[in-house]
Amino acid sequence: MEQSPIDKLVSDISKLPGLGRRSAQRIALFLLKNKDKNLLPLVESLNLSYDNIIECQTCGNIDMQNPCNICSNNNRDNSSICVVEDVSDLWTFEKVGVYRGLYHVLGGSLSAIQGIGTDELKLNNLLNRVNNNNIKEIILALSTTMEGQTTSFVIADKLETFKNINVTRLAQGIPIGGEVHYLDENTLNTAFQSRKKIT
Amino acid sequence: MEQSPIDKLVSDISKLPGLGRRSAQRIALFLLKNKDKNLLPLVESLNLSYDNIIECQTCGNIDMQNPCNICSNNNRDNSSICVVEDVSDLWTFEKVGVYRGLYHVLGGSLSAIQGIGTDELKLNNLLNRVNNNNIKEIILALSTTMEGQTTSFVIADKLETFKNINVTRLAQGIPIGGEVHYLDENTLNTAFQSRKKIT
Repeated sequence: MEQSPIDKLVSDISKLPGLGRRSAQRIALFLLKNKDKNLLPLVESLNLSYDNIIECQTCGNIDMQNPCNICSNNNRDNSSICVVEDVSDLWTFEKVGVYRGLYHVLGGSLSAIQGIGTDELKLNNLLNRVNNNNIKEIILALSTTMEGQTTSFVIADKLETFKNINVTRLAQGIPIGGEVHYLDENTLNTAFQSRKKIT
Repeated sequence: MEQSPIDKLVSDISKLPGLGRRSAQRIALFLLKNKDKNLLPLVESLNLSYDNIIECQTCGNIDMQNPCNICSNNNRDNSSICVVEDVSDLWTFEKVGVYRGLYHVLGGSLSAIQGIGTDELKLNNLLNRVNNNNIKEIILALSTTMEGQTTSFVIADKLETFKNINVTRLAQGIPIGGEVHYLDENTLNTAFQSRKKIT
């Protein structure tokens, strides 16, 4: 039996990340209740994005131009590349505003379970960038999960041949605002081992 | 400054019920990461819904036909109308499958705070239906919130002139699977007052 458009809409919305059937149903009803006010603008916005947003072939960011406005911005430090898992991580760093170099979006991290190997990630692109540009620092800003740390290790390993590049990673320790008695053993252990002298 | 299509997409998605900025961003990235596989089918599904789904002018259900397939189904008991707040309530009843009569979707419940008065709800439509059809029972299946109960009361009041119609409401008490020590006082009080003899 063919699905009705309502069932199809609910099932298509429930495929979006973080949405279950209930929330998908709620969203579908919201859209259908006032189609011209709710559904139409969303479709227009999606179409606009479909037509205009492309992936930067240099760093993997998404933008309306290729190279993206970060890669093509002359005011940024093009000797530094910050390696992130996902575009959302890049957005977060940009929001914080602490970093003025370039990025490289891997598209995930190595995961045997999810079948993500080195070929699935933009690792070779990164090595090409390092080969063809005068890079002084690579900052590995990956998650401190098992997968993220493995990925960091593999990248650091591949970059070892470039003797004049500093490969760094984000500091690990107690998050700001974190309460010691709620932290897990791993974090506490790491923070303890890496303790710093109060100057 | 004009919004970029990405910002616009994130902000349009975050207008959907139940979604904050974070989840909207996650969904936008999911859609943009593989536009042809993720974004395009959703747009097609939305367009299909836009073109095909209409509101039933009799009961307020949404369907591909008007009157909807419930109102036009001859196998259903057309002497009974179950009054619900929302289409999602109608869907829930249909999924449970206990009820074989017709529905009437009010489109909410009376709320002074949200500015929903009798004119905003499909109350007059309900009275017209009762006037023009041979209705024997009206089941008020509204929420047991303050607003829902007020609405039930107002409807029951308006239906008082129809002497040969049974106006009923759903039973109130302890939900199945409910643990007594977690229930609120109102529910317990209601359940206690309405206790039934075990036959």
